[in-house]
Amino acid sequence: MSYIRKNFLLSNPTAEKLYFGYAKEMPIFDYHCHLPEKQILENKPFSDLFEIWLAGDHYKWRLMRNFGVNEEYITGSRSNKEKFLTYCRVLGGAFGNPLYHWSQVELEEFFGCTKEINEQNAEAIWEECNAYIRAHKVTPQSLIEGSNVKHLYTTNEVFDDLTTFEKIKEKGYAFTVTPAFRADKIMNIDAPRYREFIGMLEAQTHAVHTLADLEAAIEKRLVAFLAVGCRASDIAVERVCPISSAEEAELVLEKALRGEQPTLAEAEIFKGYLTYALMKLYAKYGVATELHIGAMRNNNAQMLKKLGLDTGFDSISDTNSIGNLSRLFDRLNDEGSLPKTIVFNLNPKMNTEIMTLIGCFQSSEVKGKMQYGPAWWFLDNKVGMEQHLRDLTATGHIAAFVGMLTDSRSLLSYPRHHYFRRILCNYFGTMIENGEMTDHMELVGGIVQDICYNNSVAYFGMEP
Amino acid sequence: MSYIRKNFLLSNPTAEKLYFGYAKEMPIFDYHCHLPEKQILENKPFSDLFEIWLAGDHYKWRLMRNFGVNEEYITGSRSNKEKFLTYCRVLGGAFGNPLYHWSQVELEEFFGCTKEINEQNAEAIWEECNAYIRAHKVTPQSLIEGSNVKHLYTTNEVFDDLTTFEKIKEKGYAFTVTPAFRADKIMNIDAPRYREFIGMLEAQTHAVHTLADLEAAIEKRLVAFLAVGCRASDIAVERVCPISSAEEAELVLEKALRGEQPTLAEAEIFKGYLTYALMKLYAKYGVATELHIGAMRNNNAQMLKKLGLDTGFDSISDTNSIGNLSRLFDRLNDEGSLPKTIVFNLNPKMNTEIMTLIGCFQSSEVKGKMQYGPAWWFLDNKVGMEQHLRDLTATGHIAAFVGMLTDSRSLLSYPRHHYFRRILCNYFGTMIENGEMTDHMELVGGIVQDICYNNSVAYFGMEP
Amino acid sequence: MSYIRKNFLLSNPTAEKLYFGYAKEMPIFDYHCHLPEKQILENKPFSDLFEIWLAGDHYKWRLMRNFGVNEEYITGSRSNKEKFLTYCRVLGGAFGNPLYHWSQVELEEFFGCTKEINEQNAEAIWEECNAYIRAHKVTPQSLIEGSNVKHLYTTNEVFDDLTTFEKIKEKGYAFTVTPAFRADKIMNIDAPRYREFIGMLEAQTHAVHTLADLEAAIEKRLVAFLAVGCRASDIAVERVCPISSAEEAELVLEKALRGEQPTLAEAEIFKGYLTYALMKLYAKYGVATELHIGAMRNNNAQMLKKLGLDTGFDSISDTNSIGNLSRLFDRLNDEGSLPKTIVFNLNPKMNTEIMTLIGCFQSSEVKGKMQYGPAWWFLDNKVGMEQHLRDLTATGHIAAFVGMLTDSRSLLSYPRHHYFRRILCNYFGTMIENGEMTDHMELVGGIVQDICYNNSVAYFGMEP
Repeated sequence: MSYIRKNFLLSNPTAEKLYFGYAKEMPIFDYHCHLPEKQILENKPFSDLFEIWLAGDHYKWRLMRNFGVNEEYITGSRSNKEKFLTYCRVLGGAFGNPLYHWSQVELEEFFGCTKEINEQNAEAIWEECNAYIRAHKVTPQSLIEGSNVKHLYTTNEVFDDLTTFEKIKEKGYAFTVTPAFRADKIMNIDAPRYREFIGMLEAQTHAVHTLADLEAAIEKRLVAFLAVGCRASDIAVERVCPISSAEEAELVLEKALRGEQPTLAEAEIFKGYLTYALMKLYAKYGVATELHIGAMRNNNAQMLKKLGLDTGFDSISDTNSIGNLSRLFDRLNDEGSLPKTIVFNLNPKMNTEIMTLIGCFQSSEVKGKMQYGPAWWFLDNKVGMEQHLRDLTATGHIAAFVGMLTDSRSLLSYPRHHYFRRILCNYFGTMIENGEMTDHMELVGGIVQDICYNNSVAYFGMEP
Repeated sequence: MSYIRKNFLLSNPTAEKLYFGYAKEMPIFDYHCHLPEKQILENKPFSDLFEIWLAGDHYKWRLMRNFGVNEEYITGSRSNKEKFLTYCRVLGGAFGNPLYHWSQVELEEFFGCTKEINEQNAEAIWEECNAYIRAHKVTPQSLIEGSNVKHLYTTNEVFDDLTTFEKIKEKGYAFTVTPAFRADKIMNIDAPRYREFIGMLEAQTHAVHTLADLEAAIEKRLVAFLAVGCRASDIAVERVCPISSAEEAELVLEKALRGEQPTLAEAEIFKGYLTYALMKLYAKYGVATELHIGAMRNNNAQMLKKLGLDTGFDSISDTNSIGNLSRLFDRLNDEGSLPKTIVFNLNPKMNTEIMTLIGCFQSSEVKGKMQYGPAWWFLDNKVGMEQHLRDLTATGHIAAFVGMLTDSRSLLSYPRHHYFRRILCNYFGTMIENGEMTDHMELVGGIVQDICYNNSVAYFGMEP
Repeated sequence: MSYIRKNFLLSNPTAEKLYFGYAKEMPIFDYHCHLPEKQILENKPFSDLFEIWLAGDHYKWRLMRNFGVNEEYITGSRSNKEKFLTYCRVLGGAFGNPLYHWSQVELEEFFGCTKEINEQNAEAIWEECNAYIRAHKVTPQSLIEGSNVKHLYTTNEVFDDLTTFEKIKEKGYAFTVTPAFRADKIMNIDAPRYREFIGMLEAQTHAVHTLADLEAAIEKRLVAFLAVGCRASDIAVERVCPISSAEEAELVLEKALRGEQPTLAEAEIFKGYLTYALMKLYAKYGVATELHIGAMRNNNAQMLKKLGLDTGFDSISDTNSIGNLSRLFDRLNDEGSLPKTIVFNLNPKMNTEIMTLIGCFQSSEVKGKMQYGPAWWFLDNKVGMEQHLRDLTATGHIAAFVGMLTDSRSLLSYPRHHYFRRILCNYFGTMIENGEMTDHMELVGGIVQDICYNNSVAYFGMEP
């Protein structure tokens, strides 16, 4: 038996009452994840625990690297089983790390395995979970439906083929799968393959010679996304660049289209304009913007060459841009074109700056129009979530919060919703027991349920 | 009955002993607030709870906006009662927000109303409190004296008429009302109405053609303030600008006096010089400087046009200026002209930077000459106060701390002093119970009383 | 009897079990301190508590200044005893300050004095401890051996005489004393005495006319350090400067060697190159780099003139340089020349940025090659250590951590290791009691012992 008990993270009876009475059974709305829609459509049974759990998870790789594990046992030539045993050994002492909790909970929730993960038990866990996977024909559908997920938003590039989403609808799953619109590859004009990405956009729309062509092409694609149900968009920037004019951006685009490499300053000019233009477009179509700020990506050039993007070599940026963010929101607001926006911020030192800025641009068009998104990526852990809740409640209104997502490439990540819900219920439960808030359980429980599910459904305008 | 109990925020018996035995009955010295002195002089009875509680409070407005309330119900055309009912509905679920506590405590302390604030009770609270207000002829004087306030410092512009303060003295109130000297309107040379403000200063002093004229005019006004008892001054800047020379500042002033708009860079040159010159002046007259750093103001241009300044559209700045602050303090110190200074910082990430810098410029002229002011504005809540205490005690000497103020436009804000005192007593009480500090109650209680009242009286040199 | 109990900082039985069962008796490896090796060699008995405790400790001076003590009673002309009595009076109310705990624990651990430190007891403590010091012939050796220290690394300039270390070896102490290599005086090209420091380096090596001469001289000295056992180096910078080329650095060096003062920008060019070149050199010889970032030094020019460096007038810098640090690590890594590195960061707001960056450059050459060092200087307190542990465990692997050091000029600082160990055991113990981690005590206890001692021994490659 592992250390996980029924009251995991629930430190008092009121917290338990809130979790089991209100939160636990609420459906999940995963409004931002990186699941491949094709995997969901194909719905192929998994073959072993490595494939489903370790194969693509750079969080786990990173933890092993931090302990000094040889890359051969992480992404290298060692067998699936050797890699798995290594991970269990490393995880056994990773006290305080979110993976220490997540991994344990995932094995229990999905495969009924309650053995404590460590070097001694690794072999037995490997056998037990693999037996379960084979016996139960575990598939993407079974994992998602078993997790009580009602809606999930994948992240898709502007040029992605959308027919997969049509085909998924015909499968009769108990959940919807909808793409969120992401134009980052079109915005990152200084990226090596930029010209190629423009080509992929052109293939889906029309030839791009000017900025107007580009914007029209993006809009065409957004309309196509809308046709398959899209309600959200993603923008990811290390920092928010100052708004520049269309004329300035045009010059940079021309240069890039000629095949020349824009300077860093030119790229920022282009990004500054496009961030503004995209949000204006999203407002026009009622699409929410999920704005991700603060990742410093690909720090390790050697490993980038070896393993590619998103393999565990990103970190938290320190670049300030709250002034630019203020002017961006203000300009859009002034033009009646500020979309619903959820800001995800990777640097916890910027929590209060962004939270208080957001509070300057609310409106009655929807409850909590401007949102401070949940603790993200490196902050997606107990410490980060608790700080997020403390900061959010201190400067905002918690009952308007749209709650948790997974932001994950893994189908086993839904327990993170439960993890968040336990922390949320414990936060309220502790305040109730301490006499810091009402013990009117229906009122509090209702707000818990709103944060778990109802608020996000209303925010994105989905069927409940 | 609301959730507020006698031991609110006091988690153990020692904390209760400290609060009820030492802190609770101490008088209040509110050394920085925004109460209008004319309202105190006129002393007009209030007519309803809206007028006294919601009419001018942008903290409450902001909370409603964060929940998606239509501006009509906040600052718009709806009736006082409709606005009040809306606020109660919104507040009922604002768990963790300081207003959730403050509002509840204020109704109890001032009107004896212990009904929990929420949608269901809103109507009854409206009736009960309004009945109280009418029955007891609640006035500014009754609210201030009932709160055991001995001294309060209003914030006044250099050109403000000071006769009100003379007249207040004649009223025989049980408390003193003194202006703090604020030259921000003269410093903010890039503000739209700058020329007008200079005119108002000239009307009180002499014609301003040069920087020397300006400085002489400011000094004249400071002397007038001193005559009515002034002991403190306010400076508010988003960041501390580098010290510039009088010659550089002179050129910018000339430009502004010609009616031309200074650039942002020019404005910073002027502010950099004037911050230095003002503090030098304050040192000359033994006036303490209350330096407010880190607000990014008026983010929402549309609402600025509609509602004006200080209506809930400010946020926390991220601009670093610790190097400039170091050189400012060092230059003044070197010239023997560093005044007593209390730094209020709005960005919690800068707490330790500023606290440790302050520790480099202490002197024996007064206990805690350089102060890190209490948790301010967006940080004026349980989380912010606890972090402030932890950071302050870790890098400074808590027994030298001048303690709490309200910084408020509302006469109902004095319970924030009680709120702070409970948190302070709980902080010490918990350390005592945990064996982390002495249980010598007289020693600890004496320090509690110093922080509540005695330190600020000594610091500003008031009659105890 | 003071407030310190046996279970000080241990809030539950599991924490006690971990501390007394695993942590307490582990030897100490102090891998970064500022003890003068000559004092250790001479091993002269101390004459009174002032000399051993207050004479050179700028932490204590700073606390007195924060309380408004006259400098005469701190570093001035007052007698040792008067200064001591003043310190006791001030300390008695410094609740929450690390000195409040450290001072009390030091008197108990070294002199068996359990009287609570305050004004009333000061005289008696002075007598009791001085009697102990005289009776027991307290020496550096007795203090270090009595603290169960096995290894300590002093900090030495490149031009320091190393014969003292040879002589210490002959003394047969129960601990080793080894210098860490520090080239800061050669790097800080804009410092007043730079030409003199170069002269001291030349006296030990050869004439320095070019950058190549300088680098060769540094390498010669490093080899000499290696001969007396050196395994570590120190670099201290306010921020990490961008890497510049050898050609750029050469120009700045030439200017300095001509006796001209480099500009700030030129100095940063030189530092940017030398930081890179030094770390490359350290990698070549397998020497670990202890990189100290974030101190803003000598804020108070007046006191610098009066008392010199390191007398309590430094503070925390706010300068961002995570991008530069990323490029520095990446370039070295790409060239196969990234040494083992421990980053000490003084600004807690940068914890997560640096921790996540470090995780991008691990390797299997040693467990935890890239380390986020323990809570340092202004953060070396309960709040700072707890935040460090929370942040480190959330984004890294705690079991790879090399643990605590003293960074101290005082022989009485070893109880800080016990202080850290109690906090570490309490952190784990609390998570165990809360059901957030395994209660497999051998596993957890083993990791505790690794963090206390074994990890640093393995990391630096010392004899266990």
